[in-house]
Amino acid sequence: MNLRIPGPTPCPDEVLEAVGRPMMNHRGPEFRDIVLRVTERLKQVFQTKGDVLTLTSSGTGAMEAAITNVFSPGDKVLCVSIGYFGDRFADIAKVYGAQVQALAFPWGTAADPDRIRQALKADPAIKGVLVTHNETSTGVTNDLQAIAHVVKGEFDRLLVVDAISSLGSVPLPVDEWRCDVVATASQKGWMTPPGLAMVSMSQRAWEANTKATMPRYYFDLGSAKRYLDRGQTPATPAVSIFYGLDVALGLMLHEGMEGVYKRHARIAQRTRDGAKALGLSLLADERIASNTVSAVKVPDGVDGRKLIALVQEQSKVVIAGGQGAQEGKIFRIGHLGHVTEQNVDEALAAVGKALASLGYQHAKAGDGRTHA
Amino acid sequence: MNLRIPGPTPCPDEVLEAVGRPMMNHRGPEFRDIVLRVTERLKQVFQTKGDVLTLTSSGTGAMEAAITNVFSPGDKVLCVSIGYFGDRFADIAKVYGAQVQALAFPWGTAADPDRIRQALKADPAIKGVLVTHNETSTGVTNDLQAIAHVVKGEFDRLLVVDAISSLGSVPLPVDEWRCDVVATASQKGWMTPPGLAMVSMSQRAWEANTKATMPRYYFDLGSAKRYLDRGQTPATPAVSIFYGLDVALGLMLHEGMEGVYKRHARIAQRTRDGAKALGLSLLADERIASNTVSAVKVPDGVDGRKLIALVQEQSKVVIAGGQGAQEGKIFRIGHLGHVTEQNVDEALAAVGKALASLGYQHAKAGDGRTHA
Repeated sequence: MNLRIPGPTPCPDEVLEAVGRPMMNHRGPEFRDIVLRVTERLKQVFQTKGDVLTLTSSGTGAMEAAITNVFSPGDKVLCVSIGYFGDRFADIAKVYGAQVQALAFPWGTAADPDRIRQALKADPAIKGVLVTHNETSTGVTNDLQAIAHVVKGEFDRLLVVDAISSLGSVPLPVDEWRCDVVATASQKGWMTPPGLAMVSMSQRAWEANTKATMPRYYFDLGSAKRYLDRGQTPATPAVSIFYGLDVALGLMLHEGMEGVYKRHARIAQRTRDGAKALGLSLLADERIASNTVSAVKVPDGVDGRKLIALVQEQSKVVIAGGQGAQEGKIFRIGHLGHVTEQNVDEALAAVGKALASLGYQHAKAGDGRTHA
Repeated sequence: MNLRIPGPTPCPDEVLEAVGRPMMNHRGPEFRDIVLRVTERLKQVFQTKGDVLTLTSSGTGAMEAAITNVFSPGDKVLCVSIGYFGDRFADIAKVYGAQVQALAFPWGTAADPDRIRQALKADPAIKGVLVTHNETSTGVTNDLQAIAHVVKGEFDRLLVVDAISSLGSVPLPVDEWRCDVVATASQKGWMTPPGLAMVSMSQRAWEANTKATMPRYYFDLGSAKRYLDRGQTPATPAVSIFYGLDVALGLMLHEGMEGVYKRHARIAQRTRDGAKALGLSLLADERIASNTVSAVKVPDGVDGRKLIALVQEQSKVVIAGGQGAQEGKIFRIGHLGHVTEQNVDEALAAVGKALASLGYQHAKAGDGRTHA
């Protein structure tokens, strides 16, 4: 099976082998070594001298932690959304009592840093900005560096980033860009099964933490930090997933992060080119298209759900559908983590075959790269 | 390594093999089958016709979910504590704004149902009762049936149970005893690695849920229920741990739950007898001693931390220390989940050997079962 959804992503054999290892005492010296090594390696990938805390949860748990650990009920928060997960970020903030000011951009477009500037200028009471680095639902990567320049450089507000489907696959130098809180999750570029989520905290974030009164217990990062100092976690962690992440981080650092980023860029470009060669259109403009997931429009007259089912049935390739308003209108191909050129070539060939079976004929005649 | 802590517990080979399987789409038909089968089997073990929701978190996350999904800030909650995890339950309730009335019993004793009756009689405003079924920190099992009789039968209040280290190992017929919310976690009697927590909700709990205003997002059980109806989870679940739990539940039901309960009772008794044969005292009276974990007093003059380290060093047996106020004063032997007579015999022999190395000589002369 060629699993080409944007997470869970396929895991290398070495990682799966580690995940299947026997249990150990999560408060013993052997596990402490793993926790400390994983944390040190995560810091390298996050490019931060701050703290990185690892939680047993999905990425959504880390998004919740990112909010509740630095804000108080009533705090004004600017929630920048370019899709499904940006909306989720705002929803979590609302549930915990933030005064959410929504700044939404059409699905398939990126956030405009100038609009963020205007919003922050218009309301000095805004305490922080929530933003998605890479929007998994639309295959768009925001220009986080430019956004950070506005939020931190011009206004010095808290910058809270959902980097779940970007960090570890595309460059995100956390300290250099001055991101205060950055959340990611094991089942994306980290080539590890789901079950762990990782959150970085800057010095500024810890200062905010001391005053933040949103309720938190399981996701209390202060408690996580105190336990981490002795190589532990407050509650029993997903030991198996720690084993896997430990091995996966070794593989990533062995490849070298520059190599990882280049591979993602190259394979993403190949995916976009291949989709266009099939006569298909991308949801997002190429300049903002994600290097971890591509959202491709389902051609008129084709049933999106049938297409996805047929791709799996005919070719054992699993691609994802659209979320929310884009359900049935797009399909998504994940190309993050443990991914090769061959993986996306096969996925595109499978899409071409399924489209042909569904009677779709694309306009671009004579293009040798399309399906036969 | 003989892992004899009260969780994570050792996993059968078949479970570990399943845990190491490749990823699949968590929104696809194959995973839906697993989610629905796991849920159906969990209901059999919970003995409930209500709902059982599976969360990606440790047991503490399930405790948080158990509280925030049925209470509102300001609600009066009676928190019955007989140890470390009872205190944690109360702490979570406090963090989320409950008015906590603490009813604490000395560590090593069980909760007195009559004291619960008095507390409920004295304050009709108490909306619910939080109680630990089996207190992992002290090796004591509360008489949950008697407590439920008071809380439900006499006062009809919400009964919220931490059954993390009991359910699946000792009888807890959720519907028969009328427990409204019951939380447990994969790494205990379920013979599965940590990463999943399971929470049952009665009809009465769902009614409370509609009015409960404590903030919750990641742990929102209403959302979990809506997704479960189509065999999914709101966020990406710990897929590997689901694979493992699926296999483990098959093993448990194949053994038969009556067989599982009898095995736990038999091995627990053997552990207690063996500890006494070494001249050691149990923290708890035998009548309330847990069938999943035994807390044994460290003899006077012996350094508890050294004892535990030596047991591991000499015999490759991992036992647990005391928590909170009992740190250094007791050690704990876990005997839940995938456990045999031989496992506890070896653990006791290891303790005997380490005690001898530390110069401890017990009073009971001529007992053939003691260390040489």
